[in-house]
Amino acid sequence: MTSGAAGNFFEDFRAGQILQHGPARSVSVGDVALYTALYGGRFAPQSSDVFARSLGLPGAPLDDLLVFHLVFGKTVPEVSLNAIANLGYAECRFLKPVFPGDTLSARSEVLGMRENTNRETGIVYVRSTGFNQNDEQVLSYARWVMVRKRSAEKDVPNGQVPKLATVVEPHESTMDPRVTFEAFDRGASGGSLYFEDYAIGARIDHGDAMTVEEAEHMMATRLYHNTARVHFNAHAEKQGRFGRRIVYGGHVISIARALSFNGLANAWFVSAINAGRHVAPCFGGDTVYAWSEIIGAAQAPSRDDMGYLRVRTVATKDRSCADFPDRSGDGGYDPAVILDLDYWVLMPRA
Amino acid sequence: MTSGAAGNFFEDFRAGQILQHGPARSVSVGDVALYTALYGGRFAPQSSDVFARSLGLPGAPLDDLLVFHLVFGKTVPEVSLNAIANLGYAECRFLKPVFPGDTLSARSEVLGMRENTNRETGIVYVRSTGFNQNDEQVLSYARWVMVRKRSAEKDVPNGQVPKLATVVEPHESTMDPRVTFEAFDRGASGGSLYFEDYAIGARIDHGDAMTVEEAEHMMATRLYHNTARVHFNAHAEKQGRFGRRIVYGGHVISIARALSFNGLANAWFVSAINAGRHVAPCFGGDTVYAWSEIIGAAQAPSRDDMGYLRVRTVATKDRSCADFPDRSGDGGYDPAVILDLDYWVLMPRA
Amino acid sequence: MTSGAAGNFFEDFRAGQILQHGPARSVSVGDVALYTALYGGRFAPQSSDVFARSLGLPGAPLDDLLVFHLVFGKTVPEVSLNAIANLGYAECRFLKPVFPGDTLSARSEVLGMRENTNRETGIVYVRSTGFNQNDEQVLSYARWVMVRKRSAEKDVPNGQVPKLATVVEPHESTMDPRVTFEAFDRGASGGSLYFEDYAIGARIDHGDAMTVEEAEHMMATRLYHNTARVHFNAHAEKQGRFGRRIVYGGHVISIARALSFNGLANAWFVSAINAGRHVAPCFGGDTVYAWSEIIGAAQAPSRDDMGYLRVRTVATKDRSCADFPDRSGDGGYDPAVILDLDYWVLMPRA
Repeated sequence: MTSGAAGNFFEDFRAGQILQHGPARSVSVGDVALYTALYGGRFAPQSSDVFARSLGLPGAPLDDLLVFHLVFGKTVPEVSLNAIANLGYAECRFLKPVFPGDTLSARSEVLGMRENTNRETGIVYVRSTGFNQNDEQVLSYARWVMVRKRSAEKDVPNGQVPKLATVVEPHESTMDPRVTFEAFDRGASGGSLYFEDYAIGARIDHGDAMTVEEAEHMMATRLYHNTARVHFNAHAEKQGRFGRRIVYGGHVISIARALSFNGLANAWFVSAINAGRHVAPCFGGDTVYAWSEIIGAAQAPSRDDMGYLRVRTVATKDRSCADFPDRSGDGGYDPAVILDLDYWVLMPRA
Repeated sequence: MTSGAAGNFFEDFRAGQILQHGPARSVSVGDVALYTALYGGRFAPQSSDVFARSLGLPGAPLDDLLVFHLVFGKTVPEVSLNAIANLGYAECRFLKPVFPGDTLSARSEVLGMRENTNRETGIVYVRSTGFNQNDEQVLSYARWVMVRKRSAEKDVPNGQVPKLATVVEPHESTMDPRVTFEAFDRGASGGSLYFEDYAIGARIDHGDAMTVEEAEHMMATRLYHNTARVHFNAHAEKQGRFGRRIVYGGHVISIARALSFNGLANAWFVSAINAGRHVAPCFGGDTVYAWSEIIGAAQAPSRDDMGYLRVRTVATKDRSCADFPDRSGDGGYDPAVILDLDYWVLMPRA
Repeated sequence: MTSGAAGNFFEDFRAGQILQHGPARSVSVGDVALYTALYGGRFAPQSSDVFARSLGLPGAPLDDLLVFHLVFGKTVPEVSLNAIANLGYAECRFLKPVFPGDTLSARSEVLGMRENTNRETGIVYVRSTGFNQNDEQVLSYARWVMVRKRSAEKDVPNGQVPKLATVVEPHESTMDPRVTFEAFDRGASGGSLYFEDYAIGARIDHGDAMTVEEAEHMMATRLYHNTARVHFNAHAEKQGRFGRRIVYGGHVISIARALSFNGLANAWFVSAINAGRHVAPCFGGDTVYAWSEIIGAAQAPSRDDMGYLRVRTVATKDRSCADFPDRSGDGGYDPAVILDLDYWVLMPRA
């Protein structure tokens, strides 16, 4: 009898196909507390109801990346259960804050696909959208994954590859119009640097680091309803590609974001992710460090209380980021680099 | 001075005795989030307030097995602190859904007891009942445990052994009469199979597996206020029966139930447990797999929107369930089997 | 560019200085559930809303030590990021119960400082105060830490050392006047001993023990927003003083307090901490045991329903407390002792 857990193979996708992901997932202050215990995030609007209300929000919203992981997790059974690799993200926009009590669901559209020349795998491009209980979009992003074919012999109609933007216009992400960065307590955010204080090209070593435990990344990944097998089954992975469980890439993103509080404490909201690359896998026992570079800035249209910074955050394992390990001239990376993330944050002006 | 932690020995029990367990335990969305992080359960009514309301419930109820563990945990100090083995369960009925905000308490009645021929241990049978803050029964089950005697010499009056049903009539478990399985969104539960789609004798390999970490099973077991020492003390267990901590058997039940979503996604409620056997212990580092067999079906009286399936779920460690490892002809089990659970689930009809 | 994570060095402190810690931290039932999962505390007023209401509280308050850790964690970035050792606590008063939904912030005043003769470090004394969202004090305590100097050469003005009380008058801690210990259900707290049942000098072996996992203490410490690096970075600590991560001392305090339920089940509230000493470090894999001695008693002024017990709780690692391992005559400790905590608890009278 079918277990219902076989997932889709490359042949099962076709451009234009709509994938409904289920079941929905209500979120709560319990999820928020677990997210805090797993990453230690301290950004003021997500930590304090009082601070969030001083911005015009009804209370502390969920961390943006927690929303990302919850929507991502929902898409795994239909999109990436048979994925060999999660190749990239683009055009990720955070469209509406999510609050405890909301219920998230997700839907994906297949944007395109391309068979690999070995005929054993192919690349599938999807746009996934997360909705709240009022059918409002909270998040939308494109990703592409390498998926196994059922059989190398089978012919697959030639698919098209979608054209995806390399940078999101940050103001395409919608900030609740009630929100204003004018009345908050400037001594209470834990940060003293504002939008104007960051120069393009500035680099920040986030200083702290976190060692990843198997129990932690598995608890995180289950919290997100992400069922990708490589994260959970030490017995089977002993015979797998790396000989052990692989940490969900999003876990590394959240660690890097939490570490970035040191230096980017007022980078309160992630408004978009332009691109993300998991340069190398992370395993239980690895210690994650991070550094960031300011690579762009944009005004918020007709708002003088806030601005957008474009940030590139690089995470490494088992290597300090004091000297900013990076891509080398030939496009390859320092061997310690595991993540290269390009995103926009929304910050208050001084 | 007494530590109050000595627990009861075989000589301390007598048939008819009432054991009041305390203190009560309020449950919250925090407990729900931890349960999700520990097992990754995705059954729709427990995951989504919106979905639960479409069934007529006021919101997402707690997972039935979380309720079981919370009531079970409450009984440990008086029933099984000096237990050598948890021998079995029977007549377990889930009587009322539990919601965040409820407060659970527990009481047990000693049903009977029998000294073992070695005179060093005896078997104690109890019926434990969980109550909510309105003194309504939420759960009732019988279990029997092997308990140490203080002294082999001491005579103990001959106790009687209770007669327990081998199968619960599933409709004896009460489903809230407000609940109906008629109006829910059939695309939103994550499952496409309904009551009628399961044939008796059908077997399902649940496919996924989960490796158990020491931190996980200890966090789970503390969450349940279960204080049995063998789960927590690596230092003392080094000299114990297995040389290490033993995972609470209920942790394995919850893993198996979460894995069973693959193939039984619409098996929304556990209405009764007929029998449960922890065939072998589970330890930190073991990877748990599971498969299920449909062993019975029953109509819900005067309801054409739901039916009961009787399911037997078998869990193994460090062995795939693709070939359904089971009892052999002589009654012994495949050496990888650790759990054999016989229970009723309530499912929607097509 | 500064990472904002450098913290203060000895030269940066001066007596009378006010340190504002941020950002604030809202607390929820999610934090409560995690605290339960991490320590397994079973004290009735913190476990059960129903029980708490029978005392006149609006619902279950947070565990007092959870409040302590949350306030302590807030102070780390400004007080102890460059600390070599957390030397002691004094004059710790719990001033107001904290409930889910409250938002905690913290402020510290530098009480005094003294350079060490090696001129490379100094001792800084601070009084830290936690506030709720109504600016009411919930907790106040003094602590002193050994902090690195930026440079041994630099001269530092001679600071004064504050005079701190060795014992807090327990009734200086304020119990909500609505609270009464007269109407609670005496069979429902899990404890049968009351204030009068404890003789000064009585010693209690708490019996149970808990092995600490790396994932657990890191999740706890992040939950408290405590960013002290020695707890999180296995890679750097390999070259550190102990060759591995050190468990946050407060984690051991909470384990010892949870274990003390066995024998002190009705010691519902910690009203003050007189002194605390982390005698030796605790590491992942250690198993923590605890015993307590009753070292004082005090009447609650004009109240005949409650009294204060002064308790000394000693925790060990990898050694049973059945024979009460302690300080020896020369002031040194049994080598297994890791914590010596002197505090007042508020208990019901019989």
